[in-house]
Amino acid sequence: MTYSMFSSDAPHPEASSLTAFSANQLDRQAEHRDEEAVEKALNTEGTHILAFTEERLVLKHDGQVLDPLFARYELKDLDPDWDEAVLLGYRPNGEPRLAVPVRIAADDLASHYKPADMRSLWRELLLEGEILGEAAQGAALVRWNRDNRFCGRCGAKMESRIGGYKRVCAACEHTIFPRTDPVVIMLAIDEERDLCLLGRSHHFAPGMYSCLAGFVEPGETMENAVRRETLEESGIRLGRIRYHASQPWPMPHSLMIGCYGEAKSSEIHLDAAELDDCRWFSREETLAMLERTAASGNTTPPLGAIAHRLMRDWVDWKR
Amino acid sequence: MTYSMFSSDAPHPEASSLTAFSANQLDRQAEHRDEEAVEKALNTEGTHILAFTEERLVLKHDGQVLDPLFARYELKDLDPDWDEAVLLGYRPNGEPRLAVPVRIAADDLASHYKPADMRSLWRELLLEGEILGEAAQGAALVRWNRDNRFCGRCGAKMESRIGGYKRVCAACEHTIFPRTDPVVIMLAIDEERDLCLLGRSHHFAPGMYSCLAGFVEPGETMENAVRRETLEESGIRLGRIRYHASQPWPMPHSLMIGCYGEAKSSEIHLDAAELDDCRWFSREETLAMLERTAASGNTTPPLGAIAHRLMRDWVDWKR
Repeated sequence: MTYSMFSSDAPHPEASSLTAFSANQLDRQAEHRDEEAVEKALNTEGTHILAFTEERLVLKHDGQVLDPLFARYELKDLDPDWDEAVLLGYRPNGEPRLAVPVRIAADDLASHYKPADMRSLWRELLLEGEILGEAAQGAALVRWNRDNRFCGRCGAKMESRIGGYKRVCAACEHTIFPRTDPVVIMLAIDEERDLCLLGRSHHFAPGMYSCLAGFVEPGETMENAVRRETLEESGIRLGRIRYHASQPWPMPHSLMIGCYGEAKSSEIHLDAAELDDCRWFSREETLAMLERTAASGNTTPPLGAIAHRLMRDWVDWKR
Repeated sequence: MTYSMFSSDAPHPEASSLTAFSANQLDRQAEHRDEEAVEKALNTEGTHILAFTEERLVLKHDGQVLDPLFARYELKDLDPDWDEAVLLGYRPNGEPRLAVPVRIAADDLASHYKPADMRSLWRELLLEGEILGEAAQGAALVRWNRDNRFCGRCGAKMESRIGGYKRVCAACEHTIFPRTDPVVIMLAIDEERDLCLLGRSHHFAPGMYSCLAGFVEPGETMENAVRRETLEESGIRLGRIRYHASQPWPMPHSLMIGCYGEAKSSEIHLDAAELDDCRWFSREETLAMLERTAASGNTTPPLGAIAHRLMRDWVDWKR
């Protein structure tokens, strides 16, 4: 076999594809967005639309099936704000997919509608695969547009352009583009002792442990962000950093960047303001926690979470 | 030698550290920012401050030396806006480092000041190493604060908090945090033909070729963003993706994520709206372009640019 710079010793060729929200297959046609494209998509027969009331996706349900796809005429009762419609992209068959905020509050929805936030859609398996990915894209964009009704520079009204992918101030012409917040999430590994570092935030469910994480800040590299956050939260110093997987995280619009970090110290100094607990775990204990069989009752985030992926792939790593 | 998941076949243990703007060593104390910290830092003897007029850093110069570090009293002539001061972090000796926007326009500065944008600071070697990294952090945060004077949700005034790392609306309490835009920048490699794919934007200097690049969009993984942007701009399909390096890019506040992509097709279909030209280059030609010795006169971005790093490390890759 000839050498390839793309070969890897990781358990999967692309761990990102195994995370929740990652399976969006829409053709975004990012270079060809314009006003005409949105109007044309809205008027194309067969177009389906995702409807959002604030942070929540509206699902139609008839008692058995949950369906997030609305035809345009089906949205009348929900008072859609068409000026804020988002053109997500095109299905492989050419069918456009859009998202639109509706002005009816979640509490006022009729009983044959069910509103659900992104976390519930994933955790309760209300949606899966491609459509869950499309909902994530829609949720992020609807939220960003909603958070930018007014111009940050002059306070005047901003208007949506090119299908929700640009906003322009009607007064000063200040122009902004959708926001995605890079977050580093990392599993520190002590290779000599064969241990990984997990922590508990104050808001976690009892017994749940996960990877440490934090926002990448302006003016730092990904590797420096991983080392800084780990040091700040746990007191553990890291050496080399290895990127492993990424995940779109629509709460509200993050990009999770999952890495392994080489532990260069072992004594934990907990940041009690951030964490409830932080400890080293063996491979066996981590596996039991992932599989919900740990004698301690401790658990991890569920399958689909990038933290789960980082832990699982470390456990499965060929050595 | 025992196996380590952190060993790599790349030419450098951490290519990110070889990019411009990456050498910031400030201790950000990100978990401990509060109003007292800013006030205390401003009143600490020996504190130095970076001053920005719009996008540009103000340098003191006496005809020979350029100095970006102001003591507080030295800023009086420049009309600093202390309400918008940013606490960047602490030097290894404990000395706080701040950034502040000044209200004097670049054109109105006295002749012993020189304003310079981030690109000039780097390209003209006006600053290097740690201080260039500190300037990048300051530029990104000053710009973000300036772009968010007013609340995107209600249009009322926003106020800076915890040293420029948070803004809160005085009317509706909507709270926002600094923005960092993830951008994928990638070198597509045809391993069989031993070629890499480079393009020219319309705005490039004559003869300059670089990596393709584009913003990561809400709802996609890093790998999918790399494949999408490459396909959209060049028509080339990519398979496996390998992360290589990242770089803070303060124009105004991006995180460049540098990757290699495994080319799965060879026929280029140029997006003429985006690119002036796009071609396959041999290793020898790429090396000559990097070293400014190409017979064609073609060149690459200079040392310090992540695109330069991706090209150079591919040329130097052990096979």
